[in-house]
Amino acid sequence: MVVTKKIAIIGSSGYTGQALAKILTKHPNVAIKFSGNSKEADEKFFENISSGDFDLIFFATPNGTACKYAPQLIKKKIHVIDLAADYRFKDLEIYRTWYGFDRNDLETNSEAIYGLVEFKRNEIKNRANKKETMLIANPGCYTTSSILALSPLLKYASVNEGLIDWDSIIIDGKSGVSGAGRKAETRLLYSELNENCSPYNLAGKHRHTPELEMFFGELCSREIKLSFSPHLIPMTYGLLTTCYVNFKEDFNEAKLREIYLEAYKNESFIELLTEDIYPETRLITGTNNAQIQVNYDARTKRAVITCAIDNLIKGAAGQAVQNMNLIFGFGEGCGLATLY
Amino acid sequence: MVVTKKIAIIGSSGYTGQALAKILTKHPNVAIKFSGNSKEADEKFFENISSGDFDLIFFATPNGTACKYAPQLIKKKIHVIDLAADYRFKDLEIYRTWYGFDRNDLETNSEAIYGLVEFKRNEIKNRANKKETMLIANPGCYTTSSILALSPLLKYASVNEGLIDWDSIIIDGKSGVSGAGRKAETRLLYSELNENCSPYNLAGKHRHTPELEMFFGELCSREIKLSFSPHLIPMTYGLLTTCYVNFKEDFNEAKLREIYLEAYKNESFIELLTEDIYPETRLITGTNNAQIQVNYDARTKRAVITCAIDNLIKGAAGQAVQNMNLIFGFGEGCGLATLY
Amino acid sequence: MVVTKKIAIIGSSGYTGQALAKILTKHPNVAIKFSGNSKEADEKFFENISSGDFDLIFFATPNGTACKYAPQLIKKKIHVIDLAADYRFKDLEIYRTWYGFDRNDLETNSEAIYGLVEFKRNEIKNRANKKETMLIANPGCYTTSSILALSPLLKYASVNEGLIDWDSIIIDGKSGVSGAGRKAETRLLYSELNENCSPYNLAGKHRHTPELEMFFGELCSREIKLSFSPHLIPMTYGLLTTCYVNFKEDFNEAKLREIYLEAYKNESFIELLTEDIYPETRLITGTNNAQIQVNYDARTKRAVITCAIDNLIKGAAGQAVQNMNLIFGFGEGCGLATLY
Amino acid sequence: MVVTKKIAIIGSSGYTGQALAKILTKHPNVAIKFSGNSKEADEKFFENISSGDFDLIFFATPNGTACKYAPQLIKKKIHVIDLAADYRFKDLEIYRTWYGFDRNDLETNSEAIYGLVEFKRNEIKNRANKKETMLIANPGCYTTSSILALSPLLKYASVNEGLIDWDSIIIDGKSGVSGAGRKAETRLLYSELNENCSPYNLAGKHRHTPELEMFFGELCSREIKLSFSPHLIPMTYGLLTTCYVNFKEDFNEAKLREIYLEAYKNESFIELLTEDIYPETRLITGTNNAQIQVNYDARTKRAVITCAIDNLIKGAAGQAVQNMNLIFGFGEGCGLATLY
Repeated sequence: MVVTKKIAIIGSSGYTGQALAKILTKHPNVAIKFSGNSKEADEKFFENISSGDFDLIFFATPNGTACKYAPQLIKKKIHVIDLAADYRFKDLEIYRTWYGFDRNDLETNSEAIYGLVEFKRNEIKNRANKKETMLIANPGCYTTSSILALSPLLKYASVNEGLIDWDSIIIDGKSGVSGAGRKAETRLLYSELNENCSPYNLAGKHRHTPELEMFFGELCSREIKLSFSPHLIPMTYGLLTTCYVNFKEDFNEAKLREIYLEAYKNESFIELLTEDIYPETRLITGTNNAQIQVNYDARTKRAVITCAIDNLIKGAAGQAVQNMNLIFGFGEGCGLATLY
Repeated sequence: MVVTKKIAIIGSSGYTGQALAKILTKHPNVAIKFSGNSKEADEKFFENISSGDFDLIFFATPNGTACKYAPQLIKKKIHVIDLAADYRFKDLEIYRTWYGFDRNDLETNSEAIYGLVEFKRNEIKNRANKKETMLIANPGCYTTSSILALSPLLKYASVNEGLIDWDSIIIDGKSGVSGAGRKAETRLLYSELNENCSPYNLAGKHRHTPELEMFFGELCSREIKLSFSPHLIPMTYGLLTTCYVNFKEDFNEAKLREIYLEAYKNESFIELLTEDIYPETRLITGTNNAQIQVNYDARTKRAVITCAIDNLIKGAAGQAVQNMNLIFGFGEGCGLATLY
Repeated sequence: MVVTKKIAIIGSSGYTGQALAKILTKHPNVAIKFSGNSKEADEKFFENISSGDFDLIFFATPNGTACKYAPQLIKKKIHVIDLAADYRFKDLEIYRTWYGFDRNDLETNSEAIYGLVEFKRNEIKNRANKKETMLIANPGCYTTSSILALSPLLKYASVNEGLIDWDSIIIDGKSGVSGAGRKAETRLLYSELNENCSPYNLAGKHRHTPELEMFFGELCSREIKLSFSPHLIPMTYGLLTTCYVNFKEDFNEAKLREIYLEAYKNESFIELLTEDIYPETRLITGTNNAQIQVNYDARTKRAVITCAIDNLIKGAAGQAVQNMNLIFGFGEGCGLATLY
Repeated sequence: MVVTKKIAIIGSSGYTGQALAKILTKHPNVAIKFSGNSKEADEKFFENISSGDFDLIFFATPNGTACKYAPQLIKKKIHVIDLAADYRFKDLEIYRTWYGFDRNDLETNSEAIYGLVEFKRNEIKNRANKKETMLIANPGCYTTSSILALSPLLKYASVNEGLIDWDSIIIDGKSGVSGAGRKAETRLLYSELNENCSPYNLAGKHRHTPELEMFFGELCSREIKLSFSPHLIPMTYGLLTTCYVNFKEDFNEAKLREIYLEAYKNESFIELLTEDIYPETRLITGTNNAQIQVNYDARTKRAVITCAIDNLIKGAAGQAVQNMNLIFGFGEGCGLATLY
């Protein structure tokens, strides 16, 4: 018999929190016992709760919120999934540099698992499910799409020395507007963003750059430096990354495809597209799926790998629910497979 | 006294033809003597006209149309500006490979000037204005944006041996939907493209790849191979290219900016943006302007240069009018400066 | 134990057919045994099938298709739900006038139930479930929204003689573009419809006018003449109707709200909004829900009733599934409640 | 010789102010001597200026701003055009009720002309051009479209007693989002308004209701009560009104068309569309034009009249420039005819 788990959503009015609430309301094995914003869930709220009140708390809050409460919650053996960046960096110095917060929850931070499910599944199952750690850092939308697009190739290259030019990695991201959050700012108004395409934080200025370098560095056991270029495009949902990697030896598309087929053969949320079909964000909007295509240009010895996800689902709330399912030992796709 | 020139627009129902008609209707020095589609302007039409009927004919027609009529028109000393690809390639073999048409107008083809005004102005003034050539090949939207973004740097690098990695050039393009033309095809329906972002013809499969390589090759006097990745995004007008070039030596953003300031100091349609301001397609929609920003990332030794244009104006009809103005000796911005 | 029902979708490539397939794929009690277009499901196809092959066939085909095959199918005791207009009119003369088809399936036509579930539920349960009729005419999107908006008031007025001015009914509809279907026509291109709002078939020229007059006439047992004004607006999904009715006596908003509360108190797919909240199409997109608000202006003695639905779901495929659920005796919301 | 007039734009950062600046920058006969927001143009600013500094000042400011400074400006014989509502009501009590401001500039208010050019041209020419009044209240977007759509019919009916049902007037408006202004409010974010259609302030709750009733009342010399229903639809620019009027006698579309042809025969910014062509907002976006179609439904004895304008141009900045041109005796379309 499956026991219903008691969960809370902190930050329920933002787009990520709303998406989380939509999914969890229909999840067969959880009950939303609390859903509110950071004002309702204040210091007193967190002090007073006990492990009997909640099994897991989602933080869909701005950066700097989860780290205030996570230490006391995990002591009470309540699982925490933070959808912001607070626990994404093993090295807190990087967090401090890019996010500007001063923190001293070093111990808690070191316990966190970076919850990119497709590449951390066993660790989450082994450690979070057994309560050896209570803390998951849920990746963001650009990073999720980029990691799904590049990891199979980079991992393969890391054990085939000399195959690729490690300094050639470029990620060109195109994001729907909901990824920028639900803030009352002039730059996010309809009339500013409609019929508009614009880059921002180019040339190493975006926070996802160090996050991606950290993940790939760990995955490949080497230092990685890459370029990440985010763009806002006029749609609410959806995100596409176009990723470039240069080869030093001759390669071909068939081999590239084989690497990805092998890497994702058991993944239910990854659609590796057949030849000549390209990812379209509308086709995965509202789902937890990722569409991936791999191309190789022999003339330039360059792979072009594209990946489309729904920024609020696979890129945020959906992946968070995947993580929760692993923590509780539910089917990984529970509550996610029926998304329209 | 300025003499009114008699012009014709062939292909007036497409988006490019419509844009051309809008601009030329208000141009103070021309009279539109004919505007119609390829059926109205058939073989008989072109046989019967004489140099007294038209001073210049615009072809806003599909590929393979202008090359049928241009030879006889230029013999009659009627100027021709083709907005399609028929006369963009010095080497007709490349045209044949990518566009599939069999042609034998070699002589006419060799006479054509590639009308990227900012880089061909003198040639157009000297030769077309003096009727030494009667034929201009007007560049397309992706190519115009890419050329404006990359030419100053590539030209500079071509005389500073060892500065950049010539194999590292990548152009990631994002285009509004009108760039795909006004064809009754399912893939171009509103419901297929709205809330959607999708790449196409990746990894060297797009026709603009050889066009860009030809232009830059000539500009830099060396063979160029590059990657061009087009994407459709949900907006009608506007196009942005994000261009990447790796450096082999240390460089910096200030120097990069200087190169562009120097290159474009006298260009009235190029807005080189100040630091931290990024191009936005909506800000140049409806105008003949290009917005350009240059960024340099010292960590990766990579320049990221972005350029926004209106695909139908600076990327098609507007540039064609610039070309016409040069041909007739009008002010280059005549009819273009007052665009809203 | 629930028996799995075997169903077919004819017309699977249109937007309605696609929506139907999405919902039915996840429906726990049906198996899609066939899904294809009218070419695959040709005369031979229908001749060869028997009641053992399919329990129910959905026609998501153009007008004039279902009426070719329904007579033979219902003889074989296979249920038919037509999502087009073929069986919506009791009086075939009206169909002939507005749709231009010559037909002689009078007997079949007379058997059909107009499947606006909220107002025909008992008839469907009693007759279709018992196989006394095998044919449901599924209403279209504009009609569904208009009927949900106006029926409670008109029904109430029909038993309160002198309350409203029966000649004052106006329906102003605003529809997302997918409602126009998936046809390769220039007028439906992205660049034609984006950033555009346009009416069409005004002043009694739209086919939904007689359909609405028939339904309301039957509901109120009187002849009804009304104005229906459709508009296309730039969004893919969603439809809003703004409905006007004049009162002859003084009335008030509280009473109006009471009528609707009473009418819809047991309806799980109708959200009657609280005061000062207006329907928003985005809030019901992807669901089978209708959002309704009722307003009354004492100054002009006029009710303004607004209703938002997803044109492809509650306005087509979702309602068709509601009908199917009633036919088979499943829970009415089966497969619909979990829509994102 | 035309003398260059010195003008100021107060409120230059809003959408209306931006549109005004765009048009006036290219106007051949004016020089923008000041352009700034309400903070830069404070009390001191207005105290210090003299008639030599400015010939005319545009207020593209929030309601309640122009009325603070207009009295002193018109004393200095500086023309004032307010694009907000401060001077639109002859009866200040109505303004107070709907806009909530307490004011005592009664004398100034009584001097203002309501600048709906097509119906107030002579008054503006006679009085404002001769400096008998220095104050124009520029109408808003919904009102402009509604007045252009209904005035010819209502005026005709006012001298043909018994023709129409005066209590039957309904205006159903659909507006692009820029009409809501450039305010950092959550409800105006891209992700809230994209793929969304929603009504607001229904059933007599919108401020334009009394403004329309005042204008039509004056035009027809009778009290008018009407319904106005605004809707936001997902586009930046453009506005369409669908207007309904019931007839008491039999009428026909040909006669209706004749009334409009007569009324607008000399109007250069009004496009009365031929039969079966409907207004499309995209076709007038960026211009000062209005597209109007008239339809009559004999079955319901109801006229349906539709009018599309660009909300920021004909509905705001463009009309303000028309007014300015009349004041200074320039050609009425000066600076407006060349809008793309």
